[in-house]
Order: sequence, then structure tokens, then C-alpha cells
Amino acid sequence: MPAFKRLLIGRPLKSTELGEQKLNKKKALAILSSDALSSVAYGPEQILLVLMTVSAAAFWYSVPIGIGVLILLCALILSYRQIIFAYPHGGGAYVVSKNNLGVYPGLIAGGSLLVDYILTVAVSVSAGTDAITSAFPSLHEYTVPIAVVFVLLLTILNLRGVTESASVLAYPVYLFVVALFILIGTGIYRIATGEVSHELHTPVGTPIAGISLFLLLKAFASGSSALTGVEAISNAIPNFKDPAPNNASRTLMAMGALLAVLFSGIVFLAYYYGISPMHEVTVVSQIAEETFGRNAMYFFIQGATALILILAANTGYSAFPLLAVNLAKDKFIPRMFTVRGDRLGYSNGIISLGLLSILLIIVFQGQTEQLIPLYAVGVFIPFTLSQSGMMVKWIREKPQGWVGKLIINTTGAVICLTVTLMFFITKFAQVWTVLLFLPVIVYVFHRIKKHYEAVGEQLRLATCEPVTPIEGNVIIVPVSGITHVVEHSLNYARSLSAEQIIAVYIPFEREDEARFEEKWSKWMPDIRLVTLHSPYRSIIQPLSKFIDVVHRKASENNYQVTVVIPQFIPKKGWHNLLHNQTSFLIRTYLLYRKDIIITTVPYHLKK
Amino acid sequence: MPAFKRLLIGRPLKSTELGEQKLNKKKALAILSSDALSSVAYGPEQILLVLMTVSAAAFWYSVPIGIGVLILLCALILSYRQIIFAYPHGGGAYVVSKNNLGVYPGLIAGGSLLVDYILTVAVSVSAGTDAITSAFPSLHEYTVPIAVVFVLLLTILNLRGVTESASVLAYPVYLFVVALFILIGTGIYRIATGEVSHELHTPVGTPIAGISLFLLLKAFASGSSALTGVEAISNAIPNFKDPAPNNASRTLMAMGALLAVLFSGIVFLAYYYGISPMHEVTVVSQIAEETFGRNAMYFFIQGATALILILAANTGYSAFPLLAVNLAKDKFIPRMFTVRGDRLGYSNGIISLGLLSILLIIVFQGQTEQLIPLYAVGVFIPFTLSQSGMMVKWIREKPQGWVGKLIINTTGAVICLTVTLMFFITKFAQVWTVLLFLPVIVYVFHRIKKHYEAVGEQLRLATCEPVTPIEGNVIIVPVSGITHVVEHSLNYARSLSAEQIIAVYIPFEREDEARFEEKWSKWMPDIRLVTLHSPYRSIIQPLSKFIDVVHRKASENNYQVTVVIPQFIPKKGWHNLLHNQTSFLIRTYLLYRKDIIITTVPYHLKK
Repeated sequence: MPAFKRLLIGRPLKSTELGEQKLNKKKALAILSSDALSSVAYGPEQILLVLMTVSAAAFWYSVPIGIGVLILLCALILSYRQIIFAYPHGGGAYVVSKNNLGVYPGLIAGGSLLVDYILTVAVSVSAGTDAITSAFPSLHEYTVPIAVVFVLLLTILNLRGVTESASVLAYPVYLFVVALFILIGTGIYRIATGEVSHELHTPVGTPIAGISLFLLLKAFASGSSALTGVEAISNAIPNFKDPAPNNASRTLMAMGALLAVLFSGIVFLAYYYGISPMHEVTVVSQIAEETFGRNAMYFFIQGATALILILAANTGYSAFPLLAVNLAKDKFIPRMFTVRGDRLGYSNGIISLGLLSILLIIVFQGQTEQLIPLYAVGVFIPFTLSQSGMMVKWIREKPQGWVGKLIINTTGAVICLTVTLMFFITKFAQVWTVLLFLPVIVYVFHRIKKHYEAVGEQLRLATCEPVTPIEGNVIIVPVSGITHVVEHSLNYARSLSAEQIIAVYIPFEREDEARFEEKWSKWMPDIRLVTLHSPYRSIIQPLSKFIDVVHRKASENNYQVTVVIPQFIPKKGWHNLLHNQTSFLIRTYLLYRKDIIITTVPYHLKK
Repeated sequence: MPAFKRLLIGRPLKSTELGEQKLNKKKALAILSSDALSSVAYGPEQILLVLMTVSAAAFWYSVPIGIGVLILLCALILSYRQIIFAYPHGGGAYVVSKNNLGVYPGLIAGGSLLVDYILTVAVSVSAGTDAITSAFPSLHEYTVPIAVVFVLLLTILNLRGVTESASVLAYPVYLFVVALFILIGTGIYRIATGEVSHELHTPVGTPIAGISLFLLLKAFASGSSALTGVEAISNAIPNFKDPAPNNASRTLMAMGALLAVLFSGIVFLAYYYGISPMHEVTVVSQIAEETFGRNAMYFFIQGATALILILAANTGYSAFPLLAVNLAKDKFIPRMFTVRGDRLGYSNGIISLGLLSILLIIVFQGQTEQLIPLYAVGVFIPFTLSQSGMMVKWIREKPQGWVGKLIINTTGAVICLTVTLMFFITKFAQVWTVLLFLPVIVYVFHRIKKHYEAVGEQLRLATCEPVTPIEGNVIIVPVSGITHVVEHSLNYARSLSAEQIIAVYIPFEREDEARFEEKWSKWMPDIRLVTLHSPYRSIIQPLSKFIDVVHRKASENNYQVTVVIPQFIPKKGWHNLLHNQTSFLIRTYLLYRKDIIITTVPYHLKK
């Protein structure tokens, strides 16, 4: 088992090797921006899909809407840049909202993002798998197993550590960026040289009947789904090489620039080529076909797109564990999320994320598209909260140049709030569950915190009642027969110089009782034997009652009761199936129900 | 939970109430013969199905073949009657084969029957469910859940105890017998009064081209599947009221008589009416329609048949646990099968049977017909073995009138062997798995027995090396901080008058190490603290190494090492999720890997 684990994730790393696990800007850009960049593959299409409900002539609106999305992108990038410097230990929307707006807004932001990263993994991997099964239809019936294998691979890769996964994943991300640059460059070159007819599209500004503000806002909200993943860098600052905030901020700016270029390029080409969304062929695929024809370049762009869709999931793997650490440090989720694994990654977070997304994929049978609106709204709620949090911060602290900062965040907050509301208004049927599960998550966070606080208070030395001194010991040894295991246990009990040792035998039949007492008096005459006849063939009930009696008497003298349980340990695991696990049952029952000490005396069988 | 259990299976019974759980003949006949009687519903059909491969004119052969089956039935009934008196403690084929032929033939018989009872339950319940879903096709897609619910109901009924299940199940069994008596009686009356044309069938003796001995033997083997379940009474003698063997023997004779009458009646009517097996309508259903038309009587007979098919499963529930007790007493299967449950039934056997048949139903998606040949061969192997065993017994012991007894058993053995061979020759594709899983089962039985024997030998006082005396105690207390739980544990360790107490702290970082040592020296200066820096963040590894060192030194002086583990017990079960189960992991690891004693000091949290 340890050898297999080592093969899978590599040798354990020392805590002091943590520095070597940090990311440089190039690698960080690759693994933290895959989610945001991949949304270029479907964001522009979302805008066209809404406009199409009026008419193809309305497609020119995608240009102003695209500009709107770019403005939102700028506001978000600038705003998250400010967050990075203000909160250099990471945590993003959760920490910002908690510190500036209060605990509950913070928990709403944290809960949304936590769920969102799980959705990111499930949705991205399903989308990538769909791309593969579209290319090879014979694989179609294996969609779920293929998606699960991808999640498992990503999980293992991330368990190996952040630098290793970054090294592997950097290539496909840059490949995608290069592919799209070639596509956009060639497209614009063809337009500039007049190779493309300028009659394929309606000119910008053409009046269109039936266009309403509502529709435009809906198109804008849909297009904004291209911005999911922008917050990931602000959660993952601790993964950067020092000086972490500066490096993170530069990476964020680079990502923003790339995203802006790719997004405007695709929107513009789609508009100029007059492309209509189709059910079977994506908009990017149509642009590629229009630009190159169905040649090698076309398939290169298609392949790079499929790859980035799967790798977008990796952003979830980078951000989820770090967000979980922040929540766990504040005691809102189990403490185990703060523990570093063998390879210094927060392995419990990585494994939980993998398992939960596999669960989602299986429950939705790989048809996770219906989760996309849920996923988008789950991003824009924390966006809105973090922007509002920053507004509060600037107004409160008024640092140098705060008015400019406030304007940036206010713009961001207003746009994000609009987008969030648009999702609720236009896609309520798909996103209403958020209103159900967010309160549930926040309630669970709250209960967990309360429990941890109660425990801490009870364990702290200063606040508790002093421990009562132990004046003596009473030892009870349940015995099942006259064997070596029992002899061994009694021998041990004797060595503890206890005030009293009582052996307890529980016969199911009267005849057995007398017979055993006689044998005992010959074997261990110096140890008191109590027999408890059990007509209902239960062992735990009579033993429990007897222990209660002894415990009551012992407590009067400040004596401590210890139950010494003989247990033989078979040599091989499967042998355990062959033995009634009475020792184990007695131990578990007594440990949880009684205030007594349980000692297990193992007797290791040799064959 | 206990209240729910009580509702489900009733109040626990005292061991002394066992006598009240015994069966009278009428109830015993009902629950032990349901399997055998139900086979009348498909046995005659099996004969016709084989003959049909030649021509409908060959159907007259069903009469001599039916007579052959009746002879086999007589031989089996007489033979099992002899078994009942020779082995009045039950166990049937397993005990007979083991005592007379040797351990391995016994295990083959026992293994076959054990698997066979699981098949009985799965096949009968699936068949009954099919009958229901045929009547209500809208239920068809729920076949598997319906079958599973029936198995669960039968399991609960049997957990309530044998008399209670007998009281409930007696009605449908007698209902079926009455229904078939009415059917056969009316049929014969109509034939006698000449209402039925005597030209529907070929006269007995008509020469038919293409009939071979092989085909006739195949038809005979198929018809013999009506005899499955005949052995159940001999396994279940301990369930009878005293004098058990006499009551069991009379019940067996009554069952044989009923089976003979019903079987010959159906074979005869099918022949006289000239009925051909059809895919959608069973032979019994055709006879009923021919006799009554599609009126209330017809549906009464159909309903009673569907019911008995499900209840046939109950024979498995009566016989499996008792066979399991016999195997467990001989140590071939886990000892837990000998334990009586709250209601004095062998509940582990009942529950295992239920779970395994549910597993079969789910794996085969309720399509268990393909298992029928497997099931028949699994019955005839133990039949053959037990008959041969009885032959050996008579030849060896030569009691009064042994020649007559020998003739009966020899006849039985020869016919059963023929039937078994016919199954292998004519349906090899469906039964070959028996040749695979019987050796596996026998091997497993053998390994289990070997393990129990090895354990018994090691525990027995006479044969083992004497226990080394304990001259003193060394106590190791792993501590995680300065808290009440730790204080409590150290307090306890102090009260045991040990030679040495060592507290062990495992820091992951160097700074933490120094800080803790300083705090400790102020808090518990009298208890030695050892800190084990763990650069790989593992707790178990450094602790385990340290314990090895201490253990080696302690052993030199015959000192015993005890590890005292502080563990706090949260108030509610779900709280356990919130705590790293370090105490539990340490305890489990040490218990199985080291020869030391483990003491758990619980600290019960109050909120």
C-alpha cells in the first residue's frame, strides 16, 4: 500500500521543502487561468444565443455587449488586484466579505465558492468528455466512466503537488492561447485584406424591432459567464513564489489582458463573419472553419479547445483547497482541511473536491450543462460581495487615493449585482436551488463553528473544573473462558496494583454457570469471579448494568474503574470475519456510554 | 433503534422459551413443503418441453416418465425417512455424507445445499414477482425492487421466529393444495363423465419416430426438478415438536403423498387434454382454463400458484440456517452462524440468506430463470451423496432389515446419479459453473476449519508456553497539547504505580518543539516529556519507532509497555466528523502491529 501510494503521488516531502513547491508566474498563469481562458470557448456563443431569439439581424448588439463585458472584466481585474494587495494571504471573496461586511456575508461568499469549485470540476470535465465522445461516437456510452477517470487523473496530479501539476498543465494552456491567437490574427488579416465579404453582418447601429433592455441585459449576463474563474488567483496567493502579492498581481494582469484579447477577438470575428449559433457546431468551430477550411489548423484549434475545457477543472483544484484552509482555520469546516499531505498540498481538500465532483458527474450522468447557470450565479454572488466589501473598506480606511479605488470597486459591484439579478430574473428555474442550499451551507458552517468553540472551552485548563484525584483502581475483566488470552489479561491486571480485580463471566445457561464457577475456583482462586446469567443471550446489557453498580460504589471513594478487555488478534485480516467481534463491540459501547477507562490486552496469534 | 427493531421482529425471547418455538406437523408441513409443492407448477411442463422437440405426438411419453418420477419420489421419501431416524438432529445430506463417506463428500453436499438454498430464494421470489408483473404490466420496470421487498419481508418474518412465520404462511400453502385438488378433481370428473374428447391425445404406446433413450432421460431429468425441496424436512428436524423424528417422518410422508397426487394429477390432465407448452401461458394455467374457462375459479388457481411460488422461498429460510449451524459447529463456516438471535432463530443465517439472495436478484436483474438448471443440479448432487452415504451405513452396520433399507437407498442413489449426470450431459452450458464453485467452496471451508483449529490450539492452556510474569509497567502517553483530556490521562497513569511514565509530543516544526517543552516543564515538571520532531508530518511513524525502542528495553526486565491514549468523546455522533480521528488511528495501528497494551482514557464532552 505505501509503495503504491508512492508510485501514485511520489515520495513524501519535508515541511521545510515547502518553498520549492511555489509557483513562478508562467506556471501560475497556466494553472490558475485555465478556467477563465476556457470560458472564451463558450462565452461569446452565450451572447449570440440570447440575441438569436429576436433575429439574426440583432447580432450587431454583440459588439456593444462585448464591450460591456470587457468593462466588467477591467473592473474585476483592477478590483481583484486591489484585493490581492489588501489581503496577501489569499482567501479572496470569503476573506474580503468577512472582514468588511461581517461573518454571514463572508460565509455566503465562501459557501458559494466552495460549491462553485465543485461545479467547475464537474462541468468542465463533462464538457471536455463531451467533446471527445462527439469525435468518437462509439465512446458515447462510456461518458460517465471517462469523465470519472479524468477527475481521478486530475486528483492524482494535484496530490503530487502544485508545481508538478503546473509543469504538466502549462503546455495545453499555452497551446490553446497560441491556437486562438493564430485564429484571430488570420481572421483579422483576411478581413483587412478584404478576403471576407463585409455584407455578412448587419452594420452596428441598425435599428432592430423587438429588442428590449431586458433582452440586452440577459445577453450581457449570459456573456458574463465568460468571466467565471477570474477570482481564482486571489484565492491562491500563498501558492506563489515570493514576493507573492506582486507576482500574483502581475499574473492577474496578464490573464486579464489575454482574456480581453481572446474574448474581443472571438466576439468580433463572430460578428463580422455573421455567424449564427448552431446546435451541433460551436461558434469557435464555425469561425475556425470559415477562416481555414477543414484542414489541419482547424483540427488543431478544436483539439486545443477540448483540452482546455478539461483543464479548466484544474483551477478548481488550485483554489478549493486554499479556500477550505481559510474556512477551516476559522473553524467553519472540519479541521482536517488544514492538514498538509505527503506532498505538502492540502490533500484532504483535493480529495474531497475530487470525490464530490465524481458524485455530481454520476448523479447527473455526465449531463452537467444544466448546472452552468447555477455555476455562474454561484460566481457572481461572491463577486458582488467582495466588491461591496472593498467599497466598505475604502470608505472606512480612506487610504491614499481611496476615491479612485472606490470608483473601481463600485463600478464592479454594480455590474456584478446587475448580472446576479439578471440570472435570478431570467433563469430562475435553473438557479433557485441556490436560495435553498446557501442558507443550509451557512447553517452547517455555523453549527460546526459552535461545536469547535464548545470543545475548545471544555478542554481549556483555566475554565474547567479541576480533575478529581484518583485514590485507587477497580479493574473489571470480562472473561469468555479459561484460555491464554484471559490468563494474560489477568496477569496484567494483577501487575497494576489495583485495589480490586473482578473477573466477570456471562453464561447464557444455568448449567454453564455452575460448571464455570467450579473450574474457575480451581484455576484462579485468588481472583473474584462474578457470573451474570443472561437469559436473553445479550453480553453487553448485563455487563453494562454490573459496571454501573461498580462505578457508583467506586466513585464514592474516588476510585477509578477500568475495564480490561482481552482480545486476540488474528494473524491475517480476513480471519477477523471468523470471530464474533465481541471485544470490539464491548469496547465501543463502553467507551461511548460510560465514564470508565478501557484497556485492551491484545494476544497476537502466531498462525 | 431498539424500539424499531422490536417493532419489526418482536420482543426478545428467553433461551428457556425455545420449546414454544417448535412446530407442530400441520405448520411444519406448510413451511417446509412449500418448495417441493410449488415445483408441481413447473415440473410437468419441463417434461413436455423436452418431448415437444420431437413432436406433439410424443406427449404420451409423459405418462411413463411421470411414473418414473413418482418412483424416484418414493425412493427419496423412503430414503429420507430412514435418514430422519438415523440422524434425528438434522443436517440431512451434509451429516449423512460426512459420517458415512468422509469429510469431503460431506462438504460437497453441504456446500451445494448452502448455495442451493440461496438460489431457491432468488429463483422462487423472481418467479413469483414475474407472475405479478405479468398480471400488472405497468409494474414491469419495478421487478427488481418488488422482488427485493419480498425477500426483505420473508427475512423479517423469519427473524420473528419460526412459529410466527409458519402461522402466516400456512394459509397460502394449504390454499394452493386445495386449489389444485379442486382442479384435478374437476378435471378427472369431466373426463369420467365424457365431457372431454378422448381424441385430444395420442394413445399411450403409439410408436413415434425420432424418440431416443437420450431424449427420454433428458425429459426425465427435467421432470425430476419437481423433486427439489424434498430434503428440506430432514435438515429441519430440530424445529419439530417432540418426538421430533416421528413428527418429521409423518410430515415427510404427508408431503410425499401430496406431491405424488398433485404431480400425477397434473401430468395426467396435461396428457389427456393434449396440452402443448406455450411461451406465455403455463401448463397449469392451460389446464385450469380448459377445465373452468376464464372464470373466478381460474383466477383463484392462478393467484394461489403465484403465491406459492414466492413462499417456496421460505423453505430456504427454514433449512439454510439449520444447515449453517451444522457446518459452523464443525467449524467449516464462521462461528456466528451458531448464535441464536433475539427471537431464538439463527438470525445470522437468516440475514445472510436474505442478503445473498438480494445480491443474486440484483446481479441477474430479476431474470433468474437461467439459474434453474444450476439449482436442480445443486440439489441432485447432495441427493446422490446422501443416498450413497446411507448405502455405506447399512452395509457397515447391518441393522435388522438392512437389506430392504439398502435396496431403497440403492434405487435412490442410482436414479439420483442418473439425473445428475443427465443434467451435466444435456445442459452443460448452464451447469458447468458448479464444477468451478464447489471446489472453491470446499477449499474455503477447509481454510476456515484450519484457522479455527490453529486458534483453539494457541488459546488452550495446556499446549502453550507459560505467560511470562510482569515485573513492572512502563506507561507511554501521547499528548497533543496542554488540555484537560491530557491532564486526566496523566492523572490516571500516575494512579497505576508504574515504574515509569513518559509523555510523548510530536511537533511538526522545530519552533513548536522548543515552545512546548518549555510550557510542559512549567505544567508537569515531574513527568518526563519526550518530543519527536516529525518533518514528514506523520504521527504514527515516529511514535511507532519510539515505542519499539521502549518495548525492547522494557522486555529485558520483563516490564510491560502500556500506551495510554487520551480521547475525547463528542456528545453527538456527527461531531466525530469534525475531529481528526488520531486517537482511533493510533490505537488501531498499535493494537494490530505491536505487542503492547492499549488503554483509552475517554473524556466525555458535555456539549
